[in-house]
Amino acid sequence: MENCIFCKIIRGEIPGTFVHEDKQAVIFLDINQAAKGHLLIASRVHVEQWHELDEDNASHLARLAAQWAPAVLDATKADGYNLLQNNGPAAGQEVPHVHLHLIPRWTRDGYFGGVPDRMAQPDELRETAMAISEAKSTQ
Amino acid sequence: MENCIFCKIIRGEIPGTFVHEDKQAVIFLDINQAAKGHLLIASRVHVEQWHELDEDNASHLARLAAQWAPAVLDATKADGYNLLQNNGPAAGQEVPHVHLHLIPRWTRDGYFGGVPDRMAQPDELRETAMAISEAKSTQ
Repeated sequence: MENCIFCKIIRGEIPGTFVHEDKQAVIFLDINQAAKGHLLIASRVHVEQWHELDEDNASHLARLAAQWAPAVLDATKADGYNLLQNNGPAAGQEVPHVHLHLIPRWTRDGYFGGVPDRMAQPDELRETAMAISEAKSTQ
Repeated sequence: MENCIFCKIIRGEIPGTFVHEDKQAVIFLDINQAAKGHLLIASRVHVEQWHELDEDNASHLARLAAQWAPAVLDATKADGYNLLQNNGPAAGQEVPHVHLHLIPRWTRDGYFGGVPDRMAQPDELRETAMAISEAKSTQ
């Protein structure tokens, strides 16, 4: 897409610091290094959200994450890592071109807020599961 | 694995609220509903971290996320969603059996901290990329 900043990085029109390129995807360093070694794994195809990827591209991004995580751990001496993929501005997506964050983590680094605890009751779980299953069955 | 809580849920030894089961993976509601509709997509095979999954299982979890996200959006009327996958206690992993969180999000819900801004300089980006590429080449 012409004005997409990630498409421009992928096309080489603005600089990116790549560690990998193939026919379907690229991996480059997020200029916002939330932690040192923070990578972005992005499809070449311009779609906004994960569920708009075709299955082959979604699979490929997932495999790249598995293939590159050990190198990130090795290079950064991190204790762990998060894979984070944001869909829509409400979810914190800043660039509307699908991408997967690989973020190295160290014990007690305080980088990443995590999700709140909110223990659910069995009734709520059953009702929610039913609503999601019903929505899935109509697709 | 005998004492793994997710293996026990998958085997039916402790209750889980499932929306999907297949040969490779299951999807059930996180009892900690960080947001209403919060799903866990888990491989049947017991490995701890994403990079320990074989490529077929990693691909499958990624495809399931793409297939189920629209149903979650539809059922919960969410504005977006995060896919989050934590590897290691340092990264917030609480159950050492690989799983992918699908977390519905609403505009300004405040659920999810996101990652800190830390703009990196070109030199740092280049050095980090080189270290990661070098680590990858020795694997």
